[in-house]
Amino acid sequence: MAVPVSLEIIGEAARRIQGTVRRTPLLDVSERTNFRLLLKCENFQVTGSFKIRGAYNLVAQLAAEFPASGVITYSSGNHAQAVAYAARRLGLSAVVVMPETAPVVKVDGARSYGAEVLFEGTTSDARRIRAESEARSRGLHMVPPFDHQAIIAGQATVGLEVLEELPDVEAIYVPVGGGGLISGVAAAVKQRQPSVRVVGVEPVGSAAMHASLVRGEVVTLDQTQSVADGLLPVRPGELTFAHVSSLVDDIVVVDDEAIRAAVSWLAFSAKLVVEPSGAVSVAAALASRSSSSEESQIVAVLSGGNISSKSFASFLMNGPK
Amino acid sequence: MAVPVSLEIIGEAARRIQGTVRRTPLLDVSERTNFRLLLKCENFQVTGSFKIRGAYNLVAQLAAEFPASGVITYSSGNHAQAVAYAARRLGLSAVVVMPETAPVVKVDGARSYGAEVLFEGTTSDARRIRAESEARSRGLHMVPPFDHQAIIAGQATVGLEVLEELPDVEAIYVPVGGGGLISGVAAAVKQRQPSVRVVGVEPVGSAAMHASLVRGEVVTLDQTQSVADGLLPVRPGELTFAHVSSLVDDIVVVDDEAIRAAVSWLAFSAKLVVEPSGAVSVAAALASRSSSSEESQIVAVLSGGNISSKSFASFLMNGPK
Repeated sequence: MAVPVSLEIIGEAARRIQGTVRRTPLLDVSERTNFRLLLKCENFQVTGSFKIRGAYNLVAQLAAEFPASGVITYSSGNHAQAVAYAARRLGLSAVVVMPETAPVVKVDGARSYGAEVLFEGTTSDARRIRAESEARSRGLHMVPPFDHQAIIAGQATVGLEVLEELPDVEAIYVPVGGGGLISGVAAAVKQRQPSVRVVGVEPVGSAAMHASLVRGEVVTLDQTQSVADGLLPVRPGELTFAHVSSLVDDIVVVDDEAIRAAVSWLAFSAKLVVEPSGAVSVAAALASRSSSSEESQIVAVLSGGNISSKSFASFLMNGPK
Repeated sequence: MAVPVSLEIIGEAARRIQGTVRRTPLLDVSERTNFRLLLKCENFQVTGSFKIRGAYNLVAQLAAEFPASGVITYSSGNHAQAVAYAARRLGLSAVVVMPETAPVVKVDGARSYGAEVLFEGTTSDARRIRAESEARSRGLHMVPPFDHQAIIAGQATVGLEVLEELPDVEAIYVPVGGGGLISGVAAAVKQRQPSVRVVGVEPVGSAAMHASLVRGEVVTLDQTQSVADGLLPVRPGELTFAHVSSLVDDIVVVDDEAIRAAVSWLAFSAKLVVEPSGAVSVAAALASRSSSSEESQIVAVLSGGNISSKSFASFLMNGPK
């Protein structure tokens, strides 16, 4: 597969997802910061996260080639919901393999879109192996969570939209799990406007991309741990690693305390409900700015908002305000 | 004063507040409802509520006429913050009289914008009397919270924006406290597009406008009680009553349980932090639709988002999800 995914393929993805995927607002919260900060609100996205962009892009191509077939995926939650939603909309059946520890809100979400949910272990590797086995035995088409050109091309449309709405953006902060979103954003941004800095953000307890960059090859972590339940893959993909190592300016890490503070700040100052995984970009942007940086126009991608009211409340109760 | 405030005066207000007041997004949440529901997000507004629209419109006119003077107001919180913000931006000093029971988040907000905060009693009447006395003794210009043509004209810009962004809107649900917002919205909408239904929403424990309409004149309630701390005036204004009685299609009431449920629904389904006063419109829109209604395109105005993280968390903890 080509690295980076070309602007032509990204443009095709943008046309394919139009009408299903929402063009989310870029919300200016500079009133609350001492620099210009805008939030790309994928928490408002259909299914509650950016994942529908890549999932719909791939499932639509599968539906065209194999009508009335079925798809399968493995996911900690948001990609599962997105695949379920896309499959139902396109007339395919969907099976999703989720970790035993998946948040109830994400399991319920996938079921509400009509998916069959299977549970397998707690690691991304365990559920991938189960999903591949189910795919073979049941003749289902795999929709991988991040390491696929069509997934990356779909996520890249986030980058296109940011450039279109804020042509003078200087840096974009992006949450990193398996690396699909940052690979897409970097592919779109660096091919269109290479001067824009693209910064990936990982939880300190789950920094597989950072470790892989240091080693110069894909590294598998023994375990991962963070409040950001969507950013816990034990390793990046080969294709996403190739994108990040060739295109991304920096990968920074944030600790759980900073993530919790960012969730509270987003609620209190920006009036937004964002899940911990979606708030790591804000944690990093706020930290970066309070130290030093020349950027005057920063975008933080809020990748999702799928958190239960009760979990969210417990974050706020224990937060700084 | 003329009733209704003319489109010409509303247009002047729109031009005057441009550059200070934010054009807030109209967010489509129809994915989560069985009818088309859009939210006018004044919780994202500068100072966290729609109040800056009217306050800036009046304070800007005072600043032009009396440069380097001071303004005063009385408010449960959001109008106080708006007046403080407008005054500082226009180079005037500001004094605000707030109830002893005002939420800390709103008091801190007013102070953070540079206002001197005085506390007086718990009712809107008590603080109005104190503010009028201070205005006389200190030579300050009064910026009333709702019963003034310039305030109503400023709030009317919410209605203009809704019509511009959603020309085929069929009904608009608006929170009602003193009646400034609904008067403005009704003045703009009914003079521009009279077929659009304008519905006011009050808490059942603080339904002074509803009581006044029933009586055919302004009624003063003995006391008011609701979780919606911004909607507790004991009576509407004369000017706002005149607007509502001549222009508004209906005033409906919602109880605290429905308000709490709406706050939770907005967090969980729409990913928004909205204060109880700002959520009454959604409580009514959801209730109206689950009974019967022909409207297919409904806008609910979310009037503000000024709630502390801790209060918000306690709402979610006790909410339905």
